[in-house]
Amino acid sequence: MELLEKARAMLMGRDLLCTQDWKKEELDLILDLARDMQKERWTGKYFDVLKNRTYFMFFYNPSVRTRQSFECAATELGGHAQFLEPGTMRLKTAKTAGETVEDAAKVMSRYAAGMGIRILEDKVPEYGAGWSLLKEYALHSDIPISSMADDRFHPFQGLADTMGMQKHLGMNLKGKKALLTWGHGALCRSWCSVQEFALMASRYGMDVTIAHPEGYDLDPEVIGWVKDNCKKNGSEFAITHEAEEGYNGAHVVYARNWMSPQAYVNGELQKKAEIEKALKFPKWICCEDYMKRGNNALFTHPMPIDRGQEVTDDVASGKRSIIYDVAENRLHVQKAYMAATMK
Amino acid sequence: MELLEKARAMLMGRDLLCTQDWKKEELDLILDLARDMQKERWTGKYFDVLKNRTYFMFFYNPSVRTRQSFECAATELGGHAQFLEPGTMRLKTAKTAGETVEDAAKVMSRYAAGMGIRILEDKVPEYGAGWSLLKEYALHSDIPISSMADDRFHPFQGLADTMGMQKHLGMNLKGKKALLTWGHGALCRSWCSVQEFALMASRYGMDVTIAHPEGYDLDPEVIGWVKDNCKKNGSEFAITHEAEEGYNGAHVVYARNWMSPQAYVNGELQKKAEIEKALKFPKWICCEDYMKRGNNALFTHPMPIDRGQEVTDDVASGKRSIIYDVAENRLHVQKAYMAATMK
Amino acid sequence: MELLEKARAMLMGRDLLCTQDWKKEELDLILDLARDMQKERWTGKYFDVLKNRTYFMFFYNPSVRTRQSFECAATELGGHAQFLEPGTMRLKTAKTAGETVEDAAKVMSRYAAGMGIRILEDKVPEYGAGWSLLKEYALHSDIPISSMADDRFHPFQGLADTMGMQKHLGMNLKGKKALLTWGHGALCRSWCSVQEFALMASRYGMDVTIAHPEGYDLDPEVIGWVKDNCKKNGSEFAITHEAEEGYNGAHVVYARNWMSPQAYVNGELQKKAEIEKALKFPKWICCEDYMKRGNNALFTHPMPIDRGQEVTDDVASGKRSIIYDVAENRLHVQKAYMAATMK
Repeated sequence: MELLEKARAMLMGRDLLCTQDWKKEELDLILDLARDMQKERWTGKYFDVLKNRTYFMFFYNPSVRTRQSFECAATELGGHAQFLEPGTMRLKTAKTAGETVEDAAKVMSRYAAGMGIRILEDKVPEYGAGWSLLKEYALHSDIPISSMADDRFHPFQGLADTMGMQKHLGMNLKGKKALLTWGHGALCRSWCSVQEFALMASRYGMDVTIAHPEGYDLDPEVIGWVKDNCKKNGSEFAITHEAEEGYNGAHVVYARNWMSPQAYVNGELQKKAEIEKALKFPKWICCEDYMKRGNNALFTHPMPIDRGQEVTDDVASGKRSIIYDVAENRLHVQKAYMAATMK
Repeated sequence: MELLEKARAMLMGRDLLCTQDWKKEELDLILDLARDMQKERWTGKYFDVLKNRTYFMFFYNPSVRTRQSFECAATELGGHAQFLEPGTMRLKTAKTAGETVEDAAKVMSRYAAGMGIRILEDKVPEYGAGWSLLKEYALHSDIPISSMADDRFHPFQGLADTMGMQKHLGMNLKGKKALLTWGHGALCRSWCSVQEFALMASRYGMDVTIAHPEGYDLDPEVIGWVKDNCKKNGSEFAITHEAEEGYNGAHVVYARNWMSPQAYVNGELQKKAEIEKALKFPKWICCEDYMKRGNNALFTHPMPIDRGQEVTDDVASGKRSIIYDVAENRLHVQKAYMAATMK
Repeated sequence: MELLEKARAMLMGRDLLCTQDWKKEELDLILDLARDMQKERWTGKYFDVLKNRTYFMFFYNPSVRTRQSFECAATELGGHAQFLEPGTMRLKTAKTAGETVEDAAKVMSRYAAGMGIRILEDKVPEYGAGWSLLKEYALHSDIPISSMADDRFHPFQGLADTMGMQKHLGMNLKGKKALLTWGHGALCRSWCSVQEFALMASRYGMDVTIAHPEGYDLDPEVIGWVKDNCKKNGSEFAITHEAEEGYNGAHVVYARNWMSPQAYVNGELQKKAEIEKALKFPKWICCEDYMKRGNNALFTHPMPIDRGQEVTDDVASGKRSIIYDVAENRLHVQKAYMAATMK
């Protein structure tokens, strides 16, 4: 139990909105605890850690995997995660009567021991608005607030990716090359998962290449942090607009669709226009041919995968695909975070 | 554990549709048990009281706070509350095929150890219909049925209010003055919370003043009970149609919007008309100026608060506001009730 | 605990899509375990069997009773059942981007210890499509998959029926006559419950008569299995298109509406046409008059009952009605199955 005690001493009550807000040793501790929780999953070691405690899950956007993994996480620690859809919650806006975030957050702090929020894609009027709402909840809550994916960040996905890479490439990721590449498709995805991946890969000393067609730049502030991370670790950072080149020498390929910086106009996501635009780049699909340029590269993806558009079946179901392991890791890192931060 | 044993001996299997149906010593016992549960929340004393038992929550109307607090309550006692929305349940009506309340209630009695129902506002065709449905469930069920707010009563809110007043004014509320005042706003609320407050305040020996514009009378039968309660306790009861006068000498102010007796026409809630009418009384807002007339008065409200219409931010977030304590009390009184009544 | 150990040794990891897929001794074991779980419901004997384990409930169609009984079942074994509505899940179709069943199933196998799926009526484009989806999930999952009712089968209902008949007619059902009769009404029900009843009654050695108006034939393949079951057991099988005749000498009457084989046209359920057609047979209602022809016959039904159309109140609420017992049995057989198959 010493790992858990150490984590609780260091992290009790801590919000997790983005991995970049945390020290590397804190992230390491969560990953170590997650690995122990995976090993001891059914031994009973962690069965009563959150006995009878509640974690609130606020889903502005629906989600299957995130909901499943968080609810399982709470159950496996002896607690319970409540599935809440705030569509039924009348929050105050400029135009309508309703409750302030402050009131909602203060009351929820009396009931639960932790809370996660998911808000992105069509539920935000512009890039960054979801993340701002999380910050507001964090400001007013007395319990730890965590992002279950917002429009900027997805810290648990970044932790799960890293846990997967460490399992398959070894604990020390320095000197390994990670390719983060855009994929075409009709899903118009937010930037949270890919930005968090770039942050974590650079944080753990990997060389990072980001590949995307022109017009698909990510958040300049976040990319700035990725560059800084690389600089501090003495690793390399590159951006390319070629579909194939980035694969050269890669140890890990992460291929996923994301929306363009023009996706939100006048407070609304232009989903149809974005999909039309994205479908114009059919070359941007991760396939065996490209993968051959890598260094026996792993394939990873936060799922759900859009097979045939982001990646071919060959690769997604191939021997070097670690997608199911990474999906499972969501459970373990979330359990580790909950156990460390919830009182 | 003696408090719980006493409560179970006295209250096992008891419905709770309105506090007025219960003896004062029974209400006292629930409040005492709730206070002990608050003190012992994380000591483990009550961790297994409802181990593996189920409480059904039937939400004809959505709710955030009620759902959160009931689901947490069951979790904290080692059980589980199921969140059910009967919109998906085909109950028989005059016009459609479907299941009778009797059949539904009899089967649910085989699965769960207790059940709560919430039905009010736009989900009822006329005042009192929600309460009648609860009575019908109670008639046919073999398990205790409780109101999670209907169009007439909200017993757990009344218990939580009282627990809050006892904490901040002392256990003996006799001789203290409670002002229940209407507030303007766009929420068109049912009468359950305010009627239950008046019942409990009068039951516990407080002087009760009800203030509202003309045309906002509450249920004459319930007001009759409030008067009777006052008479039995030798305390005073008054109604005023002035916005300020009732504050004079008050120890507690409870300000909240409610709909008029004309709100339902031909089986439908006239929400738009009601809101228009209510917004014509902007003087009816609880503010510092009025509060100065009181006796260092506490401010309370069952939440969610419509700030700027029912009450000013100054008052709602002021030093004498007990809104978050009262919200937390919902958890404790619900735990006490569940533990005492569910087998 | 020996019964549970025997069941786990024999059944760990087993899917349950239809009782016909299982050996009779396996079904017997589930029924024996269910009876013991009913007896020991609150003694604590089975309180921690699935401690902290998760069962996923996938409801393509909503349901009250099935959801309640499965969620209670998991809770009573110390685990938790997650209520999931895949409407929010983007599965890949011929026309839209989304996740494959394979990917969904593989990931869910990492989180949960078992999964149930419900898909029938208007959520399938043609008879058998729901059952095919379950087969696909079963193929790709590493955890046991069970049917919570699909368009062909409803194994837990069949087990619950049988447990009820054994309680009220004795453990040995050989030589008893079961009448499965169509009832008129406006519910346009799938065939799963009635087909499963016929399979189980014939499996347990009963004489089986199926009565329905012309044009309401059930699945010929399933009826073939029923006939085979009867032949193996040396019992009788008959089909009649008379409303009354089948009651002669019956020990159990199961009356329920079902749709015709023409219900699906061009990928859609023709609900309105089916209801119009069904309402043309008002003679097809189980009533005291018909019941008198039986051998002091029990009445059973999987509920919800459409009183006044499928059956009269006299019969449904009469002394020989076992509907509430059978509904309760759902809980016990589901607990037994979960405990036996989930790791």
